[in-house]
Amino acid sequence: MDSCVIPLRHGGLSLVQTTDFFYPIIDDPYMMGRIACANVLSDLYAMGVTECDNVLMLLSVSQRMTEEERDKVMPLIIQGFRDAAEDGGTSVTGGQTVLNPWVIIGGVATAVCQASEFIMPDSAVPGDVLVLTKPLGTHMAVTAHQWLDIPERWNKIKLVVTREEVELAYQEAVSSMATLNRTAAGLMRAFGAHAATDVTGFGVLGHARALAAQQRSDVAFVIHNLPVIARMAAVSKACGGRGGLLQGTAPETSGGLLVVLPRAQAARFCAELKAPGRAEGLQAWIVGVVEKGPRGARVIDKPRLIEVPPRGAPPRPDTSPSPF
Amino acid sequence: MDSCVIPLRHGGLSLVQTTDFFYPIIDDPYMMGRIACANVLSDLYAMGVTECDNVLMLLSVSQRMTEEERDKVMPLIIQGFRDAAEDGGTSVTGGQTVLNPWVIIGGVATAVCQASEFIMPDSAVPGDVLVLTKPLGTHMAVTAHQWLDIPERWNKIKLVVTREEVELAYQEAVSSMATLNRTAAGLMRAFGAHAATDVTGFGVLGHARALAAQQRSDVAFVIHNLPVIARMAAVSKACGGRGGLLQGTAPETSGGLLVVLPRAQAARFCAELKAPGRAEGLQAWIVGVVEKGPRGARVIDKPRLIEVPPRGAPPRPDTSPSPF
Repeated sequence: MDSCVIPLRHGGLSLVQTTDFFYPIIDDPYMMGRIACANVLSDLYAMGVTECDNVLMLLSVSQRMTEEERDKVMPLIIQGFRDAAEDGGTSVTGGQTVLNPWVIIGGVATAVCQASEFIMPDSAVPGDVLVLTKPLGTHMAVTAHQWLDIPERWNKIKLVVTREEVELAYQEAVSSMATLNRTAAGLMRAFGAHAATDVTGFGVLGHARALAAQQRSDVAFVIHNLPVIARMAAVSKACGGRGGLLQGTAPETSGGLLVVLPRAQAARFCAELKAPGRAEGLQAWIVGVVEKGPRGARVIDKPRLIEVPPRGAPPRPDTSPSPF
Repeated sequence: MDSCVIPLRHGGLSLVQTTDFFYPIIDDPYMMGRIACANVLSDLYAMGVTECDNVLMLLSVSQRMTEEERDKVMPLIIQGFRDAAEDGGTSVTGGQTVLNPWVIIGGVATAVCQASEFIMPDSAVPGDVLVLTKPLGTHMAVTAHQWLDIPERWNKIKLVVTREEVELAYQEAVSSMATLNRTAAGLMRAFGAHAATDVTGFGVLGHARALAAQQRSDVAFVIHNLPVIARMAAVSKACGGRGGLLQGTAPETSGGLLVVLPRAQAARFCAELKAPGRAEGLQAWIVGVVEKGPRGARVIDKPRLIEVPPRGAPPRPDTSPSPF
């Protein structure tokens, strides 16, 4: 499961808790802080929990940074992390910082819940459908963006993608990784989701497999559609299928929720998530079905590729000038 | 405060939570795991909390280790950490592991408590006394033990200490660092402690200062006695007062609780902690008094040094042969 669930001594309550920490993957410290927090909270959201009671921040400062670099970079990471926690209706009230060769950023998210406030992700049944709430291809976009400055890499992909398309894909990836899965978590509960997980390091197929293995019924998850950030499927193909983006195995950071819903609810879930008035420009796609079969997951032979166009620039700290 | 305290939405409960992680300081991976866990739990115990509801483990494996080293060392660290959590009546049900240049070991400890189950550490009054539940000198002992193999360092201290005394001091330090402050936490509540903290990186004086600063009354903490692992004061003097052991500023790892108690309760607290039948061989000393004055702490001019003799060998994992 994405979070541990511990029955408490008091009032039938459960402790739902998760920790995650990793290394920066983009150069923008503020957005990196936001992404790290979104990634930590996502494990709670994958349980349908929307109210996080506390966040601790885990941080290491690189000893290889100059003092000037530290003073510039670390406060921005922390501000991004705190701002994302605040957007999630919670706050950061503790943590630990150490010196380390590499920068580490992560946290701990904790909620104390009644049984009605979270979903045990084990009740998928044949006939359910799979919904994904963020596009795939975040790592491909971040990688392609790095390649803009590495001629021998850029030459490999420049026939299938423009510099502008890479910039837009990168912005879309950053914005997507920084988006909280909180709204999706609330809708999961509202629409009676049978199970869910969040898509991160093992890709949509890897996490679908792990989720299938936890189900009480004999169910197989079959993925038919792959929503991918625009042009990133072409870039992946140009690199000889690099990273398994079209096989569903490409790692993602702070990916969407993969939600198992009763068929009758899935379209409504997607419509609600994308409803006008939701400022964040949330998206969702029906990506597969649940069949009877040995617990596992697969992507069909020729999955339908859904090119996801960019939505706009990511949020900025209040203190910096608007890019527009 | 040593832990954050978050009022919860449910039943007047509070979330008491802490995280800590650091780098190994001794070569024995099993005991290092135990010490790391004792150190994480200690921040809860310093709040008088005895029932930890969940522990998460934070770990990084060093990329500089060979595969053989990893396979040998990391499971022992994990086993030590888990065994200590079990001794504390809790268990490890989650966590995160990454690759890093250095090994990191730490965790998160969480308790959901009624108001009667923890002590807000802010109620010291003049006339109270200060009790310390572990001897000082853990870092000096670990350092002196490393110097056994460094002739130019060993030559500096060999006139004041024997190799056997250093071995015994090291064993005492390891055993002390691995000892849980849980019994002391329970007695804190039973005897109506007014405040407490645990002694770690800032030494007994540094933590006394931080605790004094949090008090509601104008109180100064005055330290008269320094219980130190046998021979380590002499070693510290031979090194020119290295690390501030006799000034109260020497860092400790997983040190004791510094407890502020009503004078009438302090002797009983110490007697109860050391009561026969407590298998761990727990100790406690009255180390100072609380006076009226500006919030702060100091060690008197010529503090009384209490030489603490070694108690015996530390616990071993069940799987390894007994050293006796």
